[in-house]
Amino acid sequence: MNYAIVLRLLSYILYCEAALLLLPAMASLIYGEWMVLGVFLLTAALSAVAGALLHRIKPKSQIFYMREGFATTALCWLLISVVGAVPFVLTGSIPNPVDAMFETVSGFTTTGASILPAVEDLPRGILFWRSFTHWIGGMGVLVFLLSLLPLTGGSHVNLMKAESPGPQVDKLVPKVQSTAKILYGIYFGLTVIEFVFLLFGGMPVFEALLTSFGTAGTGGFGFRNDSFASMSPYVQWVVTIFMILFGVNFNAYFLLLMRRFRRAAASEEVRAYFVIIGVAVVIITANIYSMYNGLGEALRHAAFQVGSIITTTGFSSCDFDLWPTLSKEILVMLMFVGACAGSTGGGMKVSRLLLMGKTVGKELKQALHPQVVAPVRMDGKVVNHETIRATNVYVAAYIFIFAASFFLISLDGFDMVTNFTAIAATLNNIGPGLAQVGPMMNFGSYSNPAKLVMIFDMLAGRLEIFPMLVFFMPDTWRRF
Amino acid sequence: MNYAIVLRLLSYILYCEAALLLLPAMASLIYGEWMVLGVFLLTAALSAVAGALLHRIKPKSQIFYMREGFATTALCWLLISVVGAVPFVLTGSIPNPVDAMFETVSGFTTTGASILPAVEDLPRGILFWRSFTHWIGGMGVLVFLLSLLPLTGGSHVNLMKAESPGPQVDKLVPKVQSTAKILYGIYFGLTVIEFVFLLFGGMPVFEALLTSFGTAGTGGFGFRNDSFASMSPYVQWVVTIFMILFGVNFNAYFLLLMRRFRRAAASEEVRAYFVIIGVAVVIITANIYSMYNGLGEALRHAAFQVGSIITTTGFSSCDFDLWPTLSKEILVMLMFVGACAGSTGGGMKVSRLLLMGKTVGKELKQALHPQVVAPVRMDGKVVNHETIRATNVYVAAYIFIFAASFFLISLDGFDMVTNFTAIAATLNNIGPGLAQVGPMMNFGSYSNPAKLVMIFDMLAGRLEIFPMLVFFMPDTWRRF
Repeated sequence: MNYAIVLRLLSYILYCEAALLLLPAMASLIYGEWMVLGVFLLTAALSAVAGALLHRIKPKSQIFYMREGFATTALCWLLISVVGAVPFVLTGSIPNPVDAMFETVSGFTTTGASILPAVEDLPRGILFWRSFTHWIGGMGVLVFLLSLLPLTGGSHVNLMKAESPGPQVDKLVPKVQSTAKILYGIYFGLTVIEFVFLLFGGMPVFEALLTSFGTAGTGGFGFRNDSFASMSPYVQWVVTIFMILFGVNFNAYFLLLMRRFRRAAASEEVRAYFVIIGVAVVIITANIYSMYNGLGEALRHAAFQVGSIITTTGFSSCDFDLWPTLSKEILVMLMFVGACAGSTGGGMKVSRLLLMGKTVGKELKQALHPQVVAPVRMDGKVVNHETIRATNVYVAAYIFIFAASFFLISLDGFDMVTNFTAIAATLNNIGPGLAQVGPMMNFGSYSNPAKLVMIFDMLAGRLEIFPMLVFFMPDTWRRF
Repeated sequence: MNYAIVLRLLSYILYCEAALLLLPAMASLIYGEWMVLGVFLLTAALSAVAGALLHRIKPKSQIFYMREGFATTALCWLLISVVGAVPFVLTGSIPNPVDAMFETVSGFTTTGASILPAVEDLPRGILFWRSFTHWIGGMGVLVFLLSLLPLTGGSHVNLMKAESPGPQVDKLVPKVQSTAKILYGIYFGLTVIEFVFLLFGGMPVFEALLTSFGTAGTGGFGFRNDSFASMSPYVQWVVTIFMILFGVNFNAYFLLLMRRFRRAAASEEVRAYFVIIGVAVVIITANIYSMYNGLGEALRHAAFQVGSIITTTGFSSCDFDLWPTLSKEILVMLMFVGACAGSTGGGMKVSRLLLMGKTVGKELKQALHPQVVAPVRMDGKVVNHETIRATNVYVAAYIFIFAASFFLISLDGFDMVTNFTAIAATLNNIGPGLAQVGPMMNFGSYSNPAKLVMIFDMLAGRLEIFPMLVFFMPDTWRRF
């Protein structure tokens, strides 16, 4: 392990976070929350000082392999969460440090699972920070760093690989730094467009900003106790559409910007994503039709929840825990599907499921025609063996982590649906589950050990497992 | 598709089943159930005549590939189930043909899920047939055929591959026919030993026979409404031990017979199997301790249920649906683990999970040491790429079938735990699930379409998915 270079990157991360903490500080200033302002400034100062201290360690070598990439990513996400949790504790909003850590990790990993029973009484600055962590975590902290720093020595690609969601990293342009810049550009642009649409619907600036942060990062923290249930149909539709848009592979937007419309529309993953959404919305609308006043309302709630769950955002426009089993089961299955690779959403990703389906299809074909060689293709290109292997290993690791977490949190004694959906909601970065962790409930009743398990799951989900596993292997930390 | 050779094999199967139907006929004779006797003789006659008709078609070619192997296996299992369901319908024990098919498939696939609310009033002949289907299905119908017929043209290996459980087929001896004979010999021997042990415990011959059939096939049909709850502790312990023994890879017994004790004890799968059982029993005993009179009773029920579920037998010694969530969750997870490959048990198999775990471990090692090549090893031997690929494809297909079935049966409107464990119990060939399909409940309340889905799942589980998928591909049935 090349410790010095890892620490150097962490020092940049701390500088970044210090700067980012100035935004909620500004919100506190505007709303005259002086104590909260002080806390944010203090936390920012601490972060900057810690960064400066780490920066004194000079890397002797530029060696940066996969190992360093995984370790940096895991450490970086733990570090920003620890620092990010400080304002929650110091302002007294969330006094228990484990709870504060849960909430912050839930924010950065864009999960949106909350331990807070009510959020409307929180200071404005804290509400801003909560939602802003979604926006920061959505596209990735290290990707942000990569867009700023001209790094060398293999760190670019290995960091990008470790932090970006999906079975493979598509470089939009040859240079990693430019790719990161383009991604953040699209991300920023779409967020602004949603913000404008929400303002247009009469939403106050503060709420529109927080909603945009949460949607863009596919996070899910709201600022009202009933999430989006009391919002106007217009706002619910805007949020639905933007949730779905942020779940699309950003490559598609890049291709649209490059005016390569045909290639953008040809993406099998994006097409499958829209087909799944369409089918789910139709079935659920039919299933919940009798619960609402007419087709329009049923369709709106179905589309909102489907968009929210498949993109792993986790906003809710109604208490879907009251829906019939069929609709609830569809939502639970969508939790595992997740959004497209290369989006801000979590879950297993549509492309992984496509790959799995295609390998099954290939196996069947091969059983019938042993002499024919038919490689797995995606978007017309042959998928290399490495990607398929990585997908399979991911699925295996996913299953083991799911099972272990399900077992560990069951020690708390909740019912099986609660435990199952709690893990599904955290490991897939959704937010709410069903029953005791349903959309109108919260994760606060779990014990601290169970919360630590779910903190691990949220990070494992966001970083797609391997950085978190590597982090816990003693071998990783051996000097060389 | 070489139809003629497939039909030739099916004709042998029908002869076999005609002969096997004479055993329950004998039971009916002994107990003086004349109508039931008539039904069994009639069914046997029909089966024999159908076999003779099919036998008139002469195969022109001996070509027998994987495709023919899969198709024969799927057709064979459907055919024996259709024929096997006839006595249930004709005797009026199960008038609804879908229910009768469900019960028979559940028998042959050694699932043990029943649609009958009460079994104690059934004729003795019918009870015998129900349990006997477990014994037939446990080791496999085609394996039985293989042990008798000196077939040629590649059919041996391809049939064995299609019907035997586990990621790869181990031929104990070079000749497939001899392997099949040895397997059936061990199977028969162990069944007899259990039978003797049960007689020794004071069990009546008829009950001891049925219990032995059910245990040997890891089936689960009982002959009392409360399964084994009212049996003596001695009987419960005997059944526990034999359930666990029938879940062991039969290779281990072959090695023991060959006096190669060290190699038998070195099997990683068998060792992992016993470790999982041990850990599960200890945790559950501690968890349910306060519900029973002392450690002995808690341990007995824990061991019985763990043995029953991991081997996918499905007997019960108490209503484990009343246990705390932790214990229930462990049982649900064991449902997926299943027994060893090459045993009569179902589920995903311990060896597949071991392989999955090892590939994850390999991936982590490779991430840390990219220059080191460390292939996956099992029992000291390098696992070939083909086996790992097949395991991954199996897992992918398994997940898709699980999700699709879970969705389809949810149309019936039951709660999620019922639906989830109903699919887990049928696809893994367990028998009982939880809630509405718990050990003291039955599958009778599901609709016919849902039962058809579960019939497919039981067959897919027993035949490890691919034969059933190939069966539904139009390409399979194309003439060549």
